[in-house]
Amino acid sequence: MIKVGIVGYGNLGKGVSFALQKASDLECVGVFTRRDVSTVNPVTDLNVYHISELEKFKGKIDVLILCGGSATDLPNNTANVLKDFCTVDSFDTHAKIPEYFAKLDEVAKANKTLCAISIGWDPGVFSIMRSLFGSVLPCGNDYTFWGKGVSQGHSDAIRRIDGVENAIQYTVPKQEALSAVRSGANPNLTTREKHLRECYVAVKEGADKELIEKSIKEMPNYFADYDTIVNFVSAEEVAQMQKSLPHGGFVIRSGNTTENNSHVLELSLKLGSNPEFTGSVLVAYSRAIARLSKEGITGALTVYDIPLKYLSPLSNEQLREKLL
Amino acid sequence: MIKVGIVGYGNLGKGVSFALQKASDLECVGVFTRRDVSTVNPVTDLNVYHISELEKFKGKIDVLILCGGSATDLPNNTANVLKDFCTVDSFDTHAKIPEYFAKLDEVAKANKTLCAISIGWDPGVFSIMRSLFGSVLPCGNDYTFWGKGVSQGHSDAIRRIDGVENAIQYTVPKQEALSAVRSGANPNLTTREKHLRECYVAVKEGADKELIEKSIKEMPNYFADYDTIVNFVSAEEVAQMQKSLPHGGFVIRSGNTTENNSHVLELSLKLGSNPEFTGSVLVAYSRAIARLSKEGITGALTVYDIPLKYLSPLSNEQLREKLL
Repeated sequence: MIKVGIVGYGNLGKGVSFALQKASDLECVGVFTRRDVSTVNPVTDLNVYHISELEKFKGKIDVLILCGGSATDLPNNTANVLKDFCTVDSFDTHAKIPEYFAKLDEVAKANKTLCAISIGWDPGVFSIMRSLFGSVLPCGNDYTFWGKGVSQGHSDAIRRIDGVENAIQYTVPKQEALSAVRSGANPNLTTREKHLRECYVAVKEGADKELIEKSIKEMPNYFADYDTIVNFVSAEEVAQMQKSLPHGGFVIRSGNTTENNSHVLELSLKLGSNPEFTGSVLVAYSRAIARLSKEGITGALTVYDIPLKYLSPLSNEQLREKLL
Repeated sequence: MIKVGIVGYGNLGKGVSFALQKASDLECVGVFTRRDVSTVNPVTDLNVYHISELEKFKGKIDVLILCGGSATDLPNNTANVLKDFCTVDSFDTHAKIPEYFAKLDEVAKANKTLCAISIGWDPGVFSIMRSLFGSVLPCGNDYTFWGKGVSQGHSDAIRRIDGVENAIQYTVPKQEALSAVRSGANPNLTTREKHLRECYVAVKEGADKELIEKSIKEMPNYFADYDTIVNFVSAEEVAQMQKSLPHGGFVIRSGNTTENNSHVLELSLKLGSNPEFTGSVLVAYSRAIARLSKEGITGALTVYDIPLKYLSPLSNEQLREKLL
């Protein structure tokens, strides 16, 4: 049995604990939280420990699945944890990946541990597809679309506006853009042409809805470059929408091998729950990290470094016989 | 520069030679054929040698891309070639893969060479997806659909019927089945429910069309278990259709992480030319085999053993920075 621990117990940590129930070769030692342990109610039957107890588990856990955020949790903590444990994380600040990778690779090699960074669906499964598609169809263009799904960052940005009580924002790929890409037309698409932003906003009593709508639509970086739809709804309706966190998207590569022959390669993910699917991907990679670490591999890895056989509960013989 | 050779120069060999034009880090030493060299006209600027000259190239070629068929060419010849060269092939007789793998793994290890078997889109890209999807969504069902595309085996079977001059057969996935799978309904589908077989047949003068149609539709293994449509057309029309060899298909996995949250993962390939795309995949894996062999790896590998970074012309740093 591979022994794993979960660090951090928000939506993603819960997703990981559900996914661990489906993996008969992995055993969860426990959840590690910085909150008061008595306030954490795990969604599956798990031990809960305060994060300060983690060091006692050195040598007793094969892989820690880090479920903190990419803004501060992971950049501040992963290197430290990696001194004693192998880890898997979902670091998704694309621009900072090279720096994050370099730091962790150094720490892991110095401490003879192993980590996989940026695991999930984007980065993660989508990254696999961008690379695979580009390698097997070198002449062509890549397109990534996200949604329909909730963007936490954009929802937070709306909630920071004066007079807003609660809000949720859905990123929606535009059908016309998807159709143009799938036709093999290789269009040049602007940000505005690719995605729509749909906002559901509950306001405080007496708030100026017109001003709020204007503030959202003109917000730089977040909304100004997009067609944005603002719907004012009740706080109850927003709360209801927040109960499920669907997401997904598309990676499409369109290109040609000769003048006459073009090809369209497409991955589509329709995810009922973003954190549960991300958690499920993290669990598959924690299996890989445990196995690779046992083989003596150290350092930092990404999806590009790890052969698929390490993710699967099937043996190599079974993979060749059943799935090849 | 990685030096490759092409063995066999039918449709697939031609596809490989087109793909090599798009790979600036690979150089083609030449085509090796068992035909009279003077009768082979390469589609790109390449040297052509008789297969008997191959042994002279030992040490001068990094990888041979084997473009023979799976029925006799590959099972009879690969092990012998592998004594002196690293190879990549598209062996696609699913039931015989374990036996083929075991034999080549033994020969390659004994001779310190390396090979990748069963490379293409199915087996190949589709195999990658079946394994990846199953690993990240362990509770669910897999569905593979093929087409719309030409099946050479079924076209040949029709041509063997008395009175048939020429024929082409398209395998077509049924839209109702695809829709049911995409809905997440996890249907149990029979062979008949998944695919349709569309035949275009040119008959000889005086042939009994009714009897030919009956012979096709009742042919065991090939057509009896399918809904089959037979269209009688002119020999010119069949010849025209034979000029392009489109294909493609879908790998779909539908499953759930918890009772409330289901997910649908889908890969779709729309290929303008089956042999050109297969050739392009073979070329990406020949890059991988050359690199892995240089690292001292020996034996037989499949898509499950090879990290994606080896397929790409990009460096690991570029992959992490641009595609992760």
